[in-house]
Amino acid sequence: MSRRAAFFISDRTGITSESMGEALLDQFQDIKFKRSTYPFVDTPEKARAMVQIIETSARQTELRPLVFSSIINEEIRAIIRSSPGLHLSFFDAFLGVLENELGTKARHEAGRTHGIADSARYEARMDAVNFTLNHDDGVSDKNLNDADVILMGVSRSGKTPTCLYLALQYGIRAANYPLTPDDLDKPDLPPMVKPYRSKIYGLTIQPERLADIREERRPNSNYASLATCKQEVADAQAMFRRFDIPHTNTTHKSVEELAASIIQACGLKRRF
Amino acid sequence: MSRRAAFFISDRTGITSESMGEALLDQFQDIKFKRSTYPFVDTPEKARAMVQIIETSARQTELRPLVFSSIINEEIRAIIRSSPGLHLSFFDAFLGVLENELGTKARHEAGRTHGIADSARYEARMDAVNFTLNHDDGVSDKNLNDADVILMGVSRSGKTPTCLYLALQYGIRAANYPLTPDDLDKPDLPPMVKPYRSKIYGLTIQPERLADIREERRPNSNYASLATCKQEVADAQAMFRRFDIPHTNTTHKSVEELAASIIQACGLKRRF
Repeated sequence: MSRRAAFFISDRTGITSESMGEALLDQFQDIKFKRSTYPFVDTPEKARAMVQIIETSARQTELRPLVFSSIINEEIRAIIRSSPGLHLSFFDAFLGVLENELGTKARHEAGRTHGIADSARYEARMDAVNFTLNHDDGVSDKNLNDADVILMGVSRSGKTPTCLYLALQYGIRAANYPLTPDDLDKPDLPPMVKPYRSKIYGLTIQPERLADIREERRPNSNYASLATCKQEVADAQAMFRRFDIPHTNTTHKSVEELAASIIQACGLKRRF
Repeated sequence: MSRRAAFFISDRTGITSESMGEALLDQFQDIKFKRSTYPFVDTPEKARAMVQIIETSARQTELRPLVFSSIINEEIRAIIRSSPGLHLSFFDAFLGVLENELGTKARHEAGRTHGIADSARYEARMDAVNFTLNHDDGVSDKNLNDADVILMGVSRSGKTPTCLYLALQYGIRAANYPLTPDDLDKPDLPPMVKPYRSKIYGLTIQPERLADIREERRPNSNYASLATCKQEVADAQAMFRRFDIPHTNTTHKSVEELAASIIQACGLKRRF
């Protein structure tokens, strides 16, 4: 049986239409969709080419394609709407309602949501990425004072991707500090991060999952053994409790979920 | 005058409701909004607390708050809807339409769109992040064969943040190679990347902007001088043309726009 086509179409990056479409399709897990994303559909010519692609898909699958679109220009939107799809158009659904409420017309120009709206804000974000790369794995305590948050956890507990996501998505300066067995043997916080206790957020992980991840990296090592992982995780959790450090378990969480949880728990603000 | 409140509310990370809300608010640039995001509103108790926050805002600002929500649970959605806001509810707008079209009921459980839907796919993404970190700034040609794309450009042309975004957002293995003055003096492609010509994508940048960025890093250096920047950029562009390497100018583009452009130009597929 053919899969139903789901098109994510945008006059910009496609991030909004994909995000919207995926959230909806996720509600229908028994159905298999054939997804495709078309960013930068920002001229009538490109829109007409898009209509042909949708028509071909409709003919071949004999199923009405789903068209999730985020297109601000009305002419382009009208062309897309002329295609034989079920149209879930973000701006059609909400823009008129908002115009009424705000008592003003929308500018109807392609948005800058995922563009460089304001170069000062954009630089704040790039600074955060550079800060995070320079403070990955506890390599430097220089400017740790400028960190918005310091993620602390044992090796391979998920610190680096979460820091990078916080920096890229929210412009947050996220440093990280890996707890070594040596750190875990001591009764105090590691000296490098001790002055910044209020900025520390702890990551824990299921020892079994940690052992799997470490095994990929260093097979058959003491580092990857379940006994080592259990001990390190237990010691890290004891440290978090002793110093009243907020923490979460990363095992079943995505970086998006971790980032949103950390922002909420630490009261962080996006910098752009 | 008080600013109108805009609430982004979600039972999950808040990414969809923020993305949706920001795209709409961006259409009304003359109005200042007071934005706040509330993720993980996933119980009736949290929803009732949310209603109180919205009520307080409505009273204090004397303007109806805008409530952008992405909440799948109907009980929680109904509680939020009882608050005195203009409700722009993502699932209310589209879920019924989709249920009709697909001839089946949505599962109405909190989605996994930004969660770990499938651990194999999730690992593909984490692998991409690790790959990108290990292949940042041309440090290693090990496994360059496994790269999906290799971004090439002069120092500070925007390679690293773009690679990280491609890895985190799309699970794409993005390596990068910094063109040094030494590379640019030679008539051939740098030996490290030469075997992978078809994977190379070039980044260029306005020399004036490049000089500004480099000046921050190494003030008053030859590296940051406008003459050096002009020369390096011209040489890099000549190299891209000589070897027919697709390329784009990063000066006025965000990492989201760069990533979407590169995916389109290179025909890349997300890995998760």
